[in-house]
This record gives sequence, structure tokens and C-alpha cells, in this order.
Amino acid sequence: MSYQFQLPLKVRDYECDLQGIVNNAVYQQYLEHARHEFLLSRGLDFAALTARGIHLVVVRAELNYKRSLRPGDDFHVGLNTAKNGRLRFDFLQDIVRADGTLMLQARITAAGLNERGRPFPPGDLLAELLT
Amino acid sequence: MSYQFQLPLKVRDYECDLQGIVNNAVYQQYLEHARHEFLLSRGLDFAALTARGIHLVVVRAELNYKRSLRPGDDFHVGLNTAKNGRLRFDFLQDIVRADGTLMLQARITAAGLNERGRPFPPGDLLAELLT
Amino acid sequence: MSYQFQLPLKVRDYECDLQGIVNNAVYQQYLEHARHEFLLSRGLDFAALTARGIHLVVVRAELNYKRSLRPGDDFHVGLNTAKNGRLRFDFLQDIVRADGTLMLQARITAAGLNERGRPFPPGDLLAELLT
Amino acid sequence: MSYQFQLPLKVRDYECDLQGIVNNAVYQQYLEHARHEFLLSRGLDFAALTARGIHLVVVRAELNYKRSLRPGDDFHVGLNTAKNGRLRFDFLQDIVRADGTLMLQARITAAGLNERGRPFPPGDLLAELLT
Repeated sequence: MSYQFQLPLKVRDYECDLQGIVNNAVYQQYLEHARHEFLLSRGLDFAALTARGIHLVVVRAELNYKRSLRPGDDFHVGLNTAKNGRLRFDFLQDIVRADGTLMLQARITAAGLNERGRPFPPGDLLAELLT
Repeated sequence: MSYQFQLPLKVRDYECDLQGIVNNAVYQQYLEHARHEFLLSRGLDFAALTARGIHLVVVRAELNYKRSLRPGDDFHVGLNTAKNGRLRFDFLQDIVRADGTLMLQARITAAGLNERGRPFPPGDLLAELLT
Repeated sequence: MSYQFQLPLKVRDYECDLQGIVNNAVYQQYLEHARHEFLLSRGLDFAALTARGIHLVVVRAELNYKRSLRPGDDFHVGLNTAKNGRLRFDFLQDIVRADGTLMLQARITAAGLNERGRPFPPGDLLAELLT
Repeated sequence: MSYQFQLPLKVRDYECDLQGIVNNAVYQQYLEHARHEFLLSRGLDFAALTARGIHLVVVRAELNYKRSLRPGDDFHVGLNTAKNGRLRFDFLQDIVRADGTLMLQARITAAGLNERGRPFPPGDLLAELLT
């Protein structure tokens, strides 16, 4: 599988719950962190955008949990982007354990809101992200 | 809207991120907590099940983010259950702000794994949950 | 023990780690939430203060872990305030399980920073909190 | 400053709260993760110890917050160990931003509990950790 961006990470013990595996909600944290690092790699600083009143928001998340990450597991988040209509775009994100096993497959749909809370066509932004 | 189970909650400031709204991953924590409280209301203690080697796992999550919860917001999680094939069942979960505004709509698909990590038809369990 | 303010809470399963007990960091979240609810009960909204550029910051935390909260435990956070020099004040916070067992004892030292990041004597604020 | 162990980390946006800085509780997560990575570097796997019924527990935490980490900050956690009586030991932990600024200074006191929940002199363990 080929990705526009990959982020290597490692499970931290405090991310695991009483089942001894990474808690479901934590995967969304991994995915968010990978998206923000991807944006940064394209020159877009999420915190700076927020401070300027431009909010990139998640409008939909589909997460397919395949297998559970465990304490100490090394993994990476792979990321691709895709257009989704005129006002939205998708992040297609995989979480893959170091041995190549696919752990989670996600489609995160995002939209841009301007400083007045109105959706805006993320035109130039999109053009930059989709390449 | 009528629900089998409802859990009232309130946003805590530490659940909000630098956008000043509840972080996306936190909604999954709310949903999980509501599911576990629902199970408990049916006499099923999640921690006790885990200790006995019976793992209820989430295999898929669909979350539609409608609006953002903010610091101090009161809300409730409404929950219904539905059969999903022979080995799975769905939790249909809404997050509704105190003023009645729908904030998030989710379908969480769960399966049961026995102590050997094999899926089992959650028969009696299901029968109990679906009523 | 008598407190200026008490907040009843319940352990959520996702707050427990692979030891099957509430993770150490989560107690700080409980304590913070109790402080903010206390401030709110005195008419001080933390998020609103932050938006106005007034930052209440923790400069020191002492936490004595006595016993571990477990899944499903009911507990409350008890809170008292005390002056600590001219520029600081302390929150003396206990976490007490529903059966009366003391689980954690904390002293959280806070200071106020104005919109330019300088400490300010939290005069009126203090007067209000210490009663 | 010289340390027995150092762990480089980077702030993730979801770790920041509505003040736009890393939430106080998150520092304890950083510190815990650094301790577990340190133990691992000495051949002690925290999750495996837990599974064997040996619990290393934090009995006291002192955290001195000097400055606030911000979105994207690179930092490292420096760690030293020290004996603390017959049954306890201390982790002296600093959080230092990439530019050398000390952000947080902590003393975390730990004890060992055996499978029956009784403290045990962490003899061999200690001998190994203190060098």
C-alpha cells in the first residue's frame, strides 16, 4: 500500500484500558495526530489555523477495527487524501503494526469552517493536500 | 426520539481541545461509557466480563459529527440496540445537548470474543440487550 | 472532614489502565474538574476567564495516592482553599470513595496570570474563594 | 544536567486544552511513559510485570510546573532514580523543551506490591534501577 504520508508511533501503556489493549477512543487520537503532522508537512499548522479562526472540523468518521494494538506495539499511520464533493475531503487512514498487519482502517471526512462558522470550499487547501 | 437507555453527562473542561470544543476522540469515550452503563443496567458488568475472559469488542464505528459540544454543556447519550447478522450487534447512539439539539449520531458495531479470542454468537446476551 | 465544596463522580471504565485501576494521571483530571466546578459555583467560569485572557495556572501539585479507585467506584472530590503567600493559593483536595475511604490527598497550588502572562495578586478572586 | 535515561517526545495537539497549552494531567502521562520506557531499557516490561501480579504503584507525586508546553513543542523527559527508605524509590524526572528550558520538575515515589497487594522490598529491582 502506498501513502502520501506516514507517521511512525508506539503504543504507550497509559493508552491501554482494562482489557489490556489500546482503548478504542485512542485510535482517533492517533489518527488526528497523523492528520495534523501531515498538514504540518504541507506547511499547514493546525494550531496556527485555529488561532486565525479557520477551523478544520471532522464531520464524519468511519473506523473499522481489525485487530487490537497492545502495550509496546510499534505501528505507523498511513494517510491518503481524496476529494468528497465540493465542500469536503476525506482522509483515508490505516493503522499498520510494525509486522505489516492492518489493525484499523478509517475514512475521516473533514470540512473547513471560516471565522464565522460557515463552510468554505477548501479550494487551494485541497489542491495542496490532494497531491 | 425514544431510547432503551439514556445517560446524562456534562462536558468537563479537560475534554476540550485548543479549538475550545470537545475533542473528537472524547465522543467515543462518552459513547463507550454509555454502553457500559447500559450493560450494567442489564446486569452485565464490563470489567467483570473482561476478568472472566469474555471480551466485547467494537469492530466498527460510524460517527456523524453534527455540532460541537462546548465547555460546561449538559447533554445525554441515548442508546438503542439492533441485531446485525448472526455474530454482531449494533449500538445506535445519539448525543443530544440539553436543549434538544442533536450533536452526534453513531452506529457502533460490537462482537463477542470468548477466552480463546474466537467470535461467539452472543445469543443470550443479545436476547437480553435487544429488548 | 468538612469541605467548602464537594463533587460526586463515578469511575468510567476507559479511565482505567491495564492494571485494572484508575490511571494515575486521571486523578488530576478529576481534581481539575472539581476545581472548575467549584469556581463555577462561585460564579467564575474557567472557559470564560480563559477567553478573556485571564489564566489560572497550576504551579505545583502534590498528590498522595492512598488507594486505587476501580471500575464503577462512586466517589467524591472534597475541596478546601487556602492562601499561599501573596500571589498564590492552594486547593486542598481529597478523593473519597463512597464508603468513606480516603483514596487520594492533594495540594494543588495555583496562581493567576494576566493577559500579558504576568502574575497578578488574585485579590478579589481570592477573597471570594477563601470564604 | 545528566540523566540515567532520556526519552524524546513531541506535544500532540489533542493533548492541549482550551488554554492552548498541554493540560496539566498530560504531564503525568509523559512521566509515566518515560518511566515505563526506562524500565523496558533495563529489561523490565511493565505490562508483563502486571500480568505476573507484580504491581509497581505510584504512592506520591510532586510536580512543579515551571512553564507550559505548547502545540508542536519538542521536548525530552530526563530521569534519575533514588532510594527512598526500605520499601520505596523515587523517580526524579524533568521535562525539558528542545531549547533547553526546564518546563516541569517532578519527584515520583513508587513502591512495589506483590500479587497479594503487600509491599515488598524491591531489592534486586532497585539494585538494577539505581545504577
